[in-house]
Amino acid sequence: AHPVYAAMGETIFEAMSALCRDGSRVNLGQGFPDDNGPPELRDAAARALASRSNQYPPMAGVPELRDAVAAFYRRTQGLDLTRDGVIVTSGATEALTAAILSVVAPGDEVLVFAPSYDLYAPMVRRAGGTPVFVALTPPAWRYDRAAIAAAITPRTTAIIVNDPLNPTGSVASAAELADLAALCSDHDLVAICDEVWEGVRFDGVPHRSLLSLPGMAERTIKIGSAGKLFGLTGWKIGWLCAAPAMARLVARAHQFLTFTTMPATQYAVAEGLARDDVLARQHAGWARTREALLRLLADAGFAVLPAPATWFACIDLAASGIALDDAEFSRRAVHEGGVATIPLSAFVEDGAPTGVVRLCHCKDEAVLAEGVRRLAVFR
Amino acid sequence: AHPVYAAMGETIFEAMSALCRDGSRVNLGQGFPDDNGPPELRDAAARALASRSNQYPPMAGVPELRDAVAAFYRRTQGLDLTRDGVIVTSGATEALTAAILSVVAPGDEVLVFAPSYDLYAPMVRRAGGTPVFVALTPPAWRYDRAAIAAAITPRTTAIIVNDPLNPTGSVASAAELADLAALCSDHDLVAICDEVWEGVRFDGVPHRSLLSLPGMAERTIKIGSAGKLFGLTGWKIGWLCAAPAMARLVARAHQFLTFTTMPATQYAVAEGLARDDVLARQHAGWARTREALLRLLADAGFAVLPAPATWFACIDLAASGIALDDAEFSRRAVHEGGVATIPLSAFVEDGAPTGVVRLCHCKDEAVLAEGVRRLAVFR
Ligand SMILES: CSCCC(=O)C(=O)O
Ligand SMILES: CSCCC(=O)C(=O)O
Repeated sequence: AHPVYAAMGETIFEAMSALCRDGSRVNLGQGFPDDNGPPELRDAAARALASRSNQYPPMAGVPELRDAVAAFYRRTQGLDLTRDGVIVTSGATEALTAAILSVVAPGDEVLVFAPSYDLYAPMVRRAGGTPVFVALTPPAWRYDRAAIAAAITPRTTAIIVNDPLNPTGSVASAAELADLAALCSDHDLVAICDEVWEGVRFDGVPHRSLLSLPGMAERTIKIGSAGKLFGLTGWKIGWLCAAPAMARLVARAHQFLTFTTMPATQYAVAEGLARDDVLARQHAGWARTREALLRLLADAGFAVLPAPATWFACIDLAASGIALDDAEFSRRAVHEGGVATIPLSAFVEDGAPTGVVRLCHCKDEAVLAEGVRRLAVFR
Repeated sequence: AHPVYAAMGETIFEAMSALCRDGSRVNLGQGFPDDNGPPELRDAAARALASRSNQYPPMAGVPELRDAVAAFYRRTQGLDLTRDGVIVTSGATEALTAAILSVVAPGDEVLVFAPSYDLYAPMVRRAGGTPVFVALTPPAWRYDRAAIAAAITPRTTAIIVNDPLNPTGSVASAAELADLAALCSDHDLVAICDEVWEGVRFDGVPHRSLLSLPGMAERTIKIGSAGKLFGLTGWKIGWLCAAPAMARLVARAHQFLTFTTMPATQYAVAEGLARDDVLARQHAGWARTREALLRLLADAGFAVLPAPATWFACIDLAASGIALDDAEFSRRAVHEGGVATIPLSAFVEDGAPTGVVRLCHCKDEAVLAEGVRRLAVFR
């Protein structure tokens, strides 16, 4: 057995959700809406099951979806993108792993921020590379150019950037993006950009992709997710965008991970990406649930960190008057309080206490109220 | 970039199908039916899109499908299997790669047969291992115990067995399976068993999994495919079955490849696996298309090798009076003749000529007739 997997536990998201599946607990852990996604897209997929091919689609995705992704990013982010630069994957997870397996060679060092998504570091290791961590610190989780530069060595070949950032809900400023781009150009790094939260921002600032920055076109792999744009996390439709030569390289890894993705949901997502009304309705719903959770937390006396993006809010335990570390708080909250949360220590390799706990807000207001009521007993 | 991918071309299946997508050519290359799969399953998936959750299902698959896979193998193959031993994946491709990434460590040698599926060797290399090839030879592609034993070294940790075998359509005998199991036990090898063609046998012999042989329960990862059982290749629903500890290990790789698979098609496949009528109808259809292709080939003077299983027939070029090597024949057939086929050299690492070309039979009889008519000009 490979040592990376032999030492690995189940993801915290799955472990927390598993505790909630019998209905006995409130699930504010794993990021997913408790509604069932846009009926327009579910209807479109049902139609495609009946009327379109259910056999292997093209390995890179159906042309309709590749075109729709390119058009969506041209329209919303001003990217210079066509079908050739888009590869459809079975979720953003697959796109991330395809990017890491194809870009990282044994001996490479890869910059990874802490906290960040729990896939990055183990997959860099499985690819034969070494993750080199750069810490981000509360309350604002800013990218520090000097700290990043100090972590770069002659063996550094790539950086993994997640903007907006899960679990913190923070967003890189224009100046921070420019710093990241300059570092990539100066040190000839490939940027693997997990931008799955690009459509879930509440700061009124249009998302700007690292791919669009000067010098980044040939060195960036931008990753997106229909699950996050539409609130359809079970569909597992994602994609990567890159210059055609880079896209072709990552497609070689993709062809032996899943080969391709089911056509019916691809056609439905292609229709959805042209529907600004559906995208806006989903976004407005999340803006409401976010406000609801922030209000409930404030009313219950919890202090939160600024989180202008994602489906998450982050509680600062010490500032909330809670003397538990985050892992212990989450453990007691789920087992004694009956509410699942995610401790930010789960997004840090060594699991060191962070004092911060993540809650997912895209739930019915009654669910959020019950969850906060159950958490309030720990104050 | 990792050298495995930098040197890799697009799969022959995708390349051939791409040449056929404008409708100008007959596609007897990539293995997929030209009908649209069982309406019962497509209807069930459409119902599930409307009535069941479209958010993240459990990482290991919905319990209904894990139970249905276990029940299907208990009923049809007498396996001693429960939900704990089943992990659902986004197609058998993902299951194969999850198995290879989790089992193979750098420095390991892995036995791979030649010819065999084009994923195995590159993924073993990407995992850090070395594929060691054991040749199978026409006409019957038999497993030779002495030849396999001679390829085993102290560094050999695993063997990849594809039974029934794609591209040859051959099936291991009971004696060969016993030999393979004995070699695995004697040399402490993990057997990664790609059994996606288990339901596509025409020899009247019930499929027997290596997992069921003495000594194999704790060392076998058995991989299956709804795409192949039902003729729904675009659905990308597969699974792996193993002793619970082994299943958990491979699940660790799975959680960072796709994390999970869309629920609607999982529920539909769970219903389908209980429908012996649907399974039998699909099988009967393929028995008919197989007979049709074999008759057309014989009438046109082509010599075929025995192929008691899979959706494929294999032409012996020399015995058919054709003086081309297989790659050249397939190239001319697709470009000059307008019919896609797969040369068996695509299933051999060094691409050495095999003299054998694979045709897919699960097509309309008119399509098969037109394809054979176009091939006949090369005789
Ligand atoms: C694939 S499970 C993780 C879902 C998610 O994005 C999160 O909860 O952080
Ligand atoms: C994933 S494309 C290959 C399909 C197939 O099984 C074959 O044609 O051999």
